[in-house]
Amino acid sequence: MNKRYEDDSLTLHTDLYQINMAKSYWQDGIHNRKAIFDLYFRKLPFANGYAIFAGLEKIIEYLSDFRFSETDIAYLQNELNYEEDFLEYLRNLRFTGSIRSMKEGESVFSNEPILEVEAPLAEAQLIETALLNIVNYQTLIATKASRIKQVAGEEVTLEFGTRRAQEMDAALWGARATFIGGFDATSNVRAGKLFGMPVAGTHAHAMVQAYQDDYTAFKKYAESHQECVFLVDTYDTLRSGVPAAIKVAKEFGEKIQFKGIRLDSGDMAFLSKEARKLLDAAGFVDTKIFASSDLDEYTILHLKAQGAKIDAWGVGTKLITAYDQPALGAVYKLVSIEGENGEMEDTIKISANAEKVTTPGRKKVYRIINRLNDKSEGDYIALWEETPENESRLKMFHPIHTYISKFVTNFEARNLHHPIFENGELVYKLPTLHEIQAYAKEGLSLLWEEYKRSLNPEEYPVDLSQECWDNKMANIEAVKEKVKLLKNKMNE
Amino acid sequence: MNKRYEDDSLTLHTDLYQINMAKSYWQDGIHNRKAIFDLYFRKLPFANGYAIFAGLEKIIEYLSDFRFSETDIAYLQNELNYEEDFLEYLRNLRFTGSIRSMKEGESVFSNEPILEVEAPLAEAQLIETALLNIVNYQTLIATKASRIKQVAGEEVTLEFGTRRAQEMDAALWGARATFIGGFDATSNVRAGKLFGMPVAGTHAHAMVQAYQDDYTAFKKYAESHQECVFLVDTYDTLRSGVPAAIKVAKEFGEKIQFKGIRLDSGDMAFLSKEARKLLDAAGFVDTKIFASSDLDEYTILHLKAQGAKIDAWGVGTKLITAYDQPALGAVYKLVSIEGENGEMEDTIKISANAEKVTTPGRKKVYRIINRLNDKSEGDYIALWEETPENESRLKMFHPIHTYISKFVTNFEARNLHHPIFENGELVYKLPTLHEIQAYAKEGLSLLWEEYKRSLNPEEYPVDLSQECWDNKMANIEAVKEKVKLLKNKMNE
Repeated sequence: MNKRYEDDSLTLHTDLYQINMAKSYWQDGIHNRKAIFDLYFRKLPFANGYAIFAGLEKIIEYLSDFRFSETDIAYLQNELNYEEDFLEYLRNLRFTGSIRSMKEGESVFSNEPILEVEAPLAEAQLIETALLNIVNYQTLIATKASRIKQVAGEEVTLEFGTRRAQEMDAALWGARATFIGGFDATSNVRAGKLFGMPVAGTHAHAMVQAYQDDYTAFKKYAESHQECVFLVDTYDTLRSGVPAAIKVAKEFGEKIQFKGIRLDSGDMAFLSKEARKLLDAAGFVDTKIFASSDLDEYTILHLKAQGAKIDAWGVGTKLITAYDQPALGAVYKLVSIEGENGEMEDTIKISANAEKVTTPGRKKVYRIINRLNDKSEGDYIALWEETPENESRLKMFHPIHTYISKFVTNFEARNLHHPIFENGELVYKLPTLHEIQAYAKEGLSLLWEEYKRSLNPEEYPVDLSQECWDNKMANIEAVKEKVKLLKNKMNE
Repeated sequence: MNKRYEDDSLTLHTDLYQINMAKSYWQDGIHNRKAIFDLYFRKLPFANGYAIFAGLEKIIEYLSDFRFSETDIAYLQNELNYEEDFLEYLRNLRFTGSIRSMKEGESVFSNEPILEVEAPLAEAQLIETALLNIVNYQTLIATKASRIKQVAGEEVTLEFGTRRAQEMDAALWGARATFIGGFDATSNVRAGKLFGMPVAGTHAHAMVQAYQDDYTAFKKYAESHQECVFLVDTYDTLRSGVPAAIKVAKEFGEKIQFKGIRLDSGDMAFLSKEARKLLDAAGFVDTKIFASSDLDEYTILHLKAQGAKIDAWGVGTKLITAYDQPALGAVYKLVSIEGENGEMEDTIKISANAEKVTTPGRKKVYRIINRLNDKSEGDYIALWEETPENESRLKMFHPIHTYISKFVTNFEARNLHHPIFENGELVYKLPTLHEIQAYAKEGLSLLWEEYKRSLNPEEYPVDLSQECWDNKMANIEAVKEKVKLLKNKMNE
């Protein structure tokens, strides 16, 4: 049997190469050189027009607890054979860096730093894996939830995916991410407890099977619960399930609130319309129809287009696993590093693919909001020293197709980065989950509808400042020179 | 900020409806009636010919710790308003049921119970969500890993997916599942610590960027590590990276083991062949070539078909998220329940879709192994009382297309279910992870190659015994009668 550890920490939740690099840096004495890494993704998930950032709260927990436990050290020593001096360094390691980050719930786009880590090189490296793991999943799910919410509109959306989630953390933190994306509640009770989010759910087919018929099962449920949503499709939705629900509701009268019925199989458009008629005819015009059968934004859109009479959508597998694109490819790239002389030197990674070229330097990300209509003109990435908030006129141009450009006046340049850690100290006050949800909703209201269409949205502009662009070009030229030298050197 | 809890348990990691059903059962006094649930999936993932079961170890941990903590109870009381008597029942609840299960690593097929829960109705219901959550993900990933391993053959396969995994548990338990599926190691250090599995990894592009050139970075790495695999594609694989690796290896000579180079971008077929030539020409014929760039079983198959000179495959995103099918749809169905008179009554859920009809009754699953060739003839699901192991001649027939049948003689009928819990007591000795991997490999050797092809495999027979089939048909008839009665009753 595997050993489990009382002092188990998440600090070893990293790729082995991070520890091996830390060792090289430490041995070479450069482990404490300051490094700046940008965390960002290159491509929006689901071909959506925006993403919703989530994951910061867990990152804060992770970094606050960042320390190798005694059994972590023992493992590194006994199983992986690291030597004592290096282990002593790890034993005393805490996160002493600074983090600037967007807030959870922020609308975020390709190729802009969501989060920037400025920390001693070895520390920045050791935390990379966990940060990406957290942001990639939670942002993916918040975005998927937001897409579904765009289609569902004001109708209720419920997260029902725990059983199909990719293990327990995904179910839990995924449920939280769906709330950030605009969902109303989850079926996961632990998510309710830990995050203070609403939970929902009544009964399953097994209960109808246990009592052998709809009517008895609903009656037993009504005897033990005030609020009732009856699952009506176990045997025959329209001829047994719905009539049984109505019968029980009539019998119990004021003693229960007949909140709804739930459809979980069959043709949702047809069944919901027929069930609506039965409910209305019986006088239950306020009783809602819940649907939950392999739903996602596409099926919801089509069901609505067909006039399905569904008031609440329970979404499971397709949401909690982001079924149509189950991974976001956020990366973590070195953009600046302290040189031997103590000065920061920008660094770039080039590639034949223009979108894979990194943007060097310490930067800020601004949302440029037009004061006339309160809509965003796009995002603007500037070098740290720049102050676009003090400009009256801003040139914005496409970072690859630079001929696409515009001038903006009468704008607010809103800095999207907030200080989270400063030299290892947490300086950020976490908002509540409800505040984060509200912030996400508010953020989306800054975007034109064209960016929020679930199919073929317009591309939101994420532009570089002239200085940022010039710096990038200079770095590209310098690297090209260097590569030439490297090749020559190797061929000597 | 969210409250976190010292005594946080996984017991609330369930759907709210499970608690609501438990409450109805408890109030009605039937919560302790014995119920039997089958856990199984209806369709193999990835259109594969088999799946590899994983998840039992975590289920055992979860059930061993199953109890509502004080803060769990407080949450249910204060936030969800359950009344004190019911909470008192929950407070004292432990898992007192029995579990019979296949072993981890077992080859498993559609529509056969992987695991059977026999427990008081309310308990069986409360644990459903977690069991499905665990089995669905871990089995999915073990299966995906096994598919990749089928294609990679004897070459080394490494799991590199943590940063793209769906949160931390997926990275961790997913890494373990890939080992069960045949992978050699993971990059996740915590998985190495917790599960005793091998870990792998050397350095990233950031290290080359930090030192500004390949040669210096490799040299620094070699100064601090005995075993070296150099990442050669940061600037120019063939003109800078590989020559720099060779140069460092020559300079360090016996002081290091030049284990390999790693390619992470570009055309892997071309680059690996050219890199092989350079390595061989320099005398490093034993130095391996590692590849890691968005790989899965399809790309590996094609690269091998093109004669790529790759010795080790690092697989990330596509594996750890099961990218082409990120959810397995295992279900948990009531098949028998204690009636008012204390006798077990079989139960069935019927559907217009033949594959969704459950198979009622307490059952066993046998693998029928032909003693002449040590290959499996198929699986055979029998009622609990049956003893196919004592038969000399077995009729096996397709459970839907019943005219497809065969007789088997000279066979071993191997019972795939093992007792795990008996009346709440753990009676199973967990094997080590290496033993599980070996068991999985051995299990696959029982299958004809036709079932293991990654594209269009033959369908492996999963048959019902005559008695099991007769019992199912009788249940179907009985339900059809009942549904007729229910409809009439509701229309009275």
